[in-house]
Amino acid sequence: MTFQLHPQLQRDCIRLGRLELCQLLLMNDSQYPWFILVPEIGDIREIYQLSPTDRSLLQEESCQIAKRLAGLFNADKMNVAAIGNLVPQLHIHHIVRYRSDKAWPAPVWGKFDAVPYTEHQLAELLPKIKTAFDDILTRYTFRTSNFGSA
Amino acid sequence: MTFQLHPQLQRDCIRLGRLELCQLLLMNDSQYPWFILVPEIGDIREIYQLSPTDRSLLQEESCQIAKRLAGLFNADKMNVAAIGNLVPQLHIHHIVRYRSDKAWPAPVWGKFDAVPYTEHQLAELLPKIKTAFDDILTRYTFRTSNFGSA
Repeated sequence: MTFQLHPQLQRDCIRLGRLELCQLLLMNDSQYPWFILVPEIGDIREIYQLSPTDRSLLQEESCQIAKRLAGLFNADKMNVAAIGNLVPQLHIHHIVRYRSDKAWPAPVWGKFDAVPYTEHQLAELLPKIKTAFDDILTRYTFRTSNFGSA
Repeated sequence: MTFQLHPQLQRDCIRLGRLELCQLLLMNDSQYPWFILVPEIGDIREIYQLSPTDRSLLQEESCQIAKRLAGLFNADKMNVAAIGNLVPQLHIHHIVRYRSDKAWPAPVWGKFDAVPYTEHQLAELLPKIKTAFDDILTRYTFRTSNFGSA
């Protein structure tokens, strides 16, 4: 089955690159460091529909991402969730939460409208992400040079 | 490390039994079929803190539960999430969602106050759960005889 990223994820997110199984996306909402893993497999809605091999891969990629994000952003808590009520394509949220963030302790979904990153914010954020994920992220789809500090 | 179920999970949930790694709980909220897996390992807050073996076990138990719940309750969508902003002990929500439920398409957390099951509802529900999970659930901690139809 061919894989195509759901149009709403395309619209709402910045594509960062590819791990072994999943695409890694950055939700374009500067209120929280919010990342999404999308297995590049067509027509899957639930984790249990993946093969056992792909499930393990997803779990490992999810743990890698969550652990590194918790370290990179000094998280108080990671929220890791497969919801998919609105976007049926299987995607796993990884959201860095702080006791000081504006939605805490509520979940972030549907809480506040997204506040897109400024170019300046992305110019600071994307190189940090590149450094933190450089050994596991391939086929980068973002160009940090777009957001140079010059 | 000794494991003790967090007091808030004890208060909010009905303990159903034990899988290989996790306790299975039923959230006492009749608005949604809402189940929770809690790895019986002390002092863990994030999935990535589990050993690789326990991570795989958790993923498999989660998929088993989600798939069976989706079938048993004819779900439109399963919501599977590790949030833990309020209860720090690692626990994974598995919530059966319907396009017709009162929170759809929003996530359920913090949306409405819980509506506890009546004894009559539990007398109908618990035997169904027992049948659906009989081959993977051991050390039952609920007694369906408490909720007999007589």
